[in-house]
Amino acid sequence: MTDPVVLISEVGPRDGLQSITRTMPTTAKQGWIRALASAGLREIEVASFVPPKLLPQMADAADVVADAIRIPSITVLALVPNLRGAEAAVAAGAHKLTLPVSASRAHSQSNLRKTPEEAVEEVRRVVALRQDSPRSFGIEIGISTAFGCTMEGAIDEQWVIRLAVMLAEAGVDSVGLSDTTGYANPAQVRRLFRQLHAELGDKAGGAHLHNTRGQGLANVVAALDVGVSTFDASQGGLGGCPYAPGASGNIVTEDLVFLLESMGLDTGIDLEALIAARRIVAEALPDEPLYGHLPEAGLTKGFHYARDASGARP
Amino acid sequence: MTDPVVLISEVGPRDGLQSITRTMPTTAKQGWIRALASAGLREIEVASFVPPKLLPQMADAADVVADAIRIPSITVLALVPNLRGAEAAVAAGAHKLTLPVSASRAHSQSNLRKTPEEAVEEVRRVVALRQDSPRSFGIEIGISTAFGCTMEGAIDEQWVIRLAVMLAEAGVDSVGLSDTTGYANPAQVRRLFRQLHAELGDKAGGAHLHNTRGQGLANVVAALDVGVSTFDASQGGLGGCPYAPGASGNIVTEDLVFLLESMGLDTGIDLEALIAARRIVAEALPDEPLYGHLPEAGLTKGFHYARDASGARP
Repeated sequence: MTDPVVLISEVGPRDGLQSITRTMPTTAKQGWIRALASAGLREIEVASFVPPKLLPQMADAADVVADAIRIPSITVLALVPNLRGAEAAVAAGAHKLTLPVSASRAHSQSNLRKTPEEAVEEVRRVVALRQDSPRSFGIEIGISTAFGCTMEGAIDEQWVIRLAVMLAEAGVDSVGLSDTTGYANPAQVRRLFRQLHAELGDKAGGAHLHNTRGQGLANVVAALDVGVSTFDASQGGLGGCPYAPGASGNIVTEDLVFLLESMGLDTGIDLEALIAARRIVAEALPDEPLYGHLPEAGLTKGFHYARDASGARP
Repeated sequence: MTDPVVLISEVGPRDGLQSITRTMPTTAKQGWIRALASAGLREIEVASFVPPKLLPQMADAADVVADAIRIPSITVLALVPNLRGAEAAVAAGAHKLTLPVSASRAHSQSNLRKTPEEAVEEVRRVVALRQDSPRSFGIEIGISTAFGCTMEGAIDEQWVIRLAVMLAEAGVDSVGLSDTTGYANPAQVRRLFRQLHAELGDKAGGAHLHNTRGQGLANVVAALDVGVSTFDASQGGLGGCPYAPGASGNIVTEDLVFLLESMGLDTGIDLEALIAARRIVAEALPDEPLYGHLPEAGLTKGFHYARDASGARP
């Protein structure tokens, strides 16, 4: 068995669950993460190490990480707002950390109460923590509001790339671009990721795209064209950014997997098992809407996975 | 004022309204078509000339065409199932006719009670009608189930192209490809339209794509890459194919215009006027769901149209 061609990083248990007001019980989170791993997801962002008084939905972050790292097939990712959060996530055993850095100064202030440069400083502290740590861990950043901001409108593209270079030089493993607010279009996605690859080489990271204006998968096609091979997505489209008004709508993992597999790009994911995992979310959060076209319409007649391309067609 | 770079052919008044059980009153249809034209749509498929006992929603086809042709800015398109429908549509004054031809033999039988070859024969009769007609009119075909069929599964791509060549040789003006059932993926869209252009040259027509599995705009991006410049879409995503089970979901005109304009491709359409036109549909068909992400999320801050690209950015 070979590695998938495209890596889907499932962000539902963190990004999804922190965007809604109700809290999913810890055992349901653990069951959901196991179901996602069983469906073939190889990377899952499972928790956010923020003070429980700010995000009570994430109060069990350490327990969730501690359980997730016992699943051998997945990379366990945690969001940490700062050095203190990083220490807690590392102590819990997270494999990889991600920190918030936003290209929009207004979004950075309202979301993090930091300038982008101060956010990069915080990243440097976490890189230093890793240098002193007995156990290594990954550090990756997805630059928020990289394609536009509900507060500032257009964001200067050269500034986004400069910020990415600053982060790479700070010592992180990869820097991706996030369309936090659903502003991206395919032409811009191609332009920015091309520049990112040119400047950062193999430190250029993945795409975190939103479907706020229905453009999510269109932007995925554009990103694939310029060599992006890691995509964030959320089961049932749960989540978005609670601090950016109107910025709901992660791309739906189910629809993304169908897109990629139909195009002949192996994701390693089993769609029927993935769709079955929705039941765990629906039972634990009965009032939360779950999105996705594929789960409604079902697989196409004669559908086959990219990895079975040699198999018989109907 | 120059012509738009991309032509959007609005199919809501025909494809949309014939797919639902309720009938929109004639005056509402006329008002909706006028609102769509005022929003900048240059081509509208307004009616279907089928026997009223089969589709009572389209019983007023002649009246709708007669009113629409008085709007100077639009090309008025009508669907006709056969020579008899073509005669009625031409008598009513339609500028352009489209006939159903399906690549899937099973879909062709269940939808048209004809083989694909018999459907091409019917097209030949309409071409002959044009040769004998004092007034000229356009004839274009979009091959249904070109990307797959709910009954047959995969459809042989070489057969689709052979059928397109047969139609071009029959004398129609253009032959496009329709994803009637929401089966298309971007790799396939590129492959098939590339072949279509290679075989048909300037008779290669547009793309009719569905969002049944959430892939509609992703497929548009792929089609743009290989030179497709005409796209069918439906306001509010109304419609689909009533004879292909589960095949709902035209792409939403509002979301498509936003995609294209954001990419810098002029459509000639005003999004605010287009969104305002939804009210006519909502009032005439209060129980009918209207889809679209853009109408929910609103335009992005600092959004500007492709035709205003020289204007100040925020």
